[in-house]
Amino acid sequence: MSAAASKASFAVALVHYPILNRKGERSTTAVTSIDIHDFVRTCAMYDVGPVYMVHPAEAMHALLKEIAGYWLQGSGRERNPGRGESIKSLKLAKSLEEVLEEEDYTLWYTSATPPEDELMNIANLPEIEGKHLIVFGTGSGLDYAAMPKPNGWLSPIEGIGMVRHLSVRAALAIYLDRLTQKRIP
Amino acid sequence: MSAAASKASFAVALVHYPILNRKGERSTTAVTSIDIHDFVRTCAMYDVGPVYMVHPAEAMHALLKEIAGYWLQGSGRERNPGRGESIKSLKLAKSLEEVLEEEDYTLWYTSATPPEDELMNIANLPEIEGKHLIVFGTGSGLDYAAMPKPNGWLSPIEGIGMVRHLSVRAALAIYLDRLTQKRIP
Repeated sequence: MSAAASKASFAVALVHYPILNRKGERSTTAVTSIDIHDFVRTCAMYDVGPVYMVHPAEAMHALLKEIAGYWLQGSGRERNPGRGESIKSLKLAKSLEEVLEEEDYTLWYTSATPPEDELMNIANLPEIEGKHLIVFGTGSGLDYAAMPKPNGWLSPIEGIGMVRHLSVRAALAIYLDRLTQKRIP
Repeated sequence: MSAAASKASFAVALVHYPILNRKGERSTTAVTSIDIHDFVRTCAMYDVGPVYMVHPAEAMHALLKEIAGYWLQGSGRERNPGRGESIKSLKLAKSLEEVLEEEDYTLWYTSATPPEDELMNIANLPEIEGKHLIVFGTGSGLDYAAMPKPNGWLSPIEGIGMVRHLSVRAALAIYLDRLTQKRIP
């Protein structure tokens, strides 16, 4: 298994369009600084990357570059060099299609309520050779009807409480921790 | 084990003072809206509560009450009733000592670099009867020298990457997910 595991690598995408709003309509969200930081830090911790921030708007890319620049070259670099180290994995894309043109990823979508019955347990993903891209949606989740067909959907995170909707930051952390249990040599 | 598990319950505290700043000095952080929301949502998902926000300043308690009120009684309640459901678990305290006066908790501290060698794996906590309080620090972590002596420290989350510092939101999510693996009947 450790030989197989070494042939699998993992990247993450956070999609801001096309996603669903609370009413189930196609929508766009703004990029947030907290998502960037939590995503790059969690991914750095678990050796996962690149971290693609997917947003169609030029202005959002400019904002992302400014935030990353602060930590890579700006005064944030001196203040917290570790943050700059993490943020190096950040990549910007206009769409998921653009990401797939650049790299031939095996595509895994996430949802609290996946639309399919046959699901992939993320803990088993390291057994599958190749470059895996794990895709998260902002807002009320991925508008998959307007997205490329994935190779599969990951099993949702099942809690034991009444509420069943984690923040995307918490979902990422839990998925990568579960992914890693079998990757530790 | 399931009989024992039913005799254990779990609460969480997020400490804003006394914590360490990047230079290792005793310090205070501001409460952030994102920590409140991520903490109550993750805890609701895993049936963990109350969620204590620990801050010495009256003004911060006023801010917390205003944020919670928006979701409990304000227009946020209509916009997203689930958020109000989660935020009911929020409690405010001036200090951890105040929390312990109110409730006789078994106290567990968290750190990326715990000061002790003997550590508790959170997955084994449900085997210990009682009310457990899992304590997280903001900033660069708990200033434990100025805090009550805990019953123990939890094993830190070990990644496999270069960077070893998760956001407190990600750490909470991972700990509660690991806590829950043995709690599911």
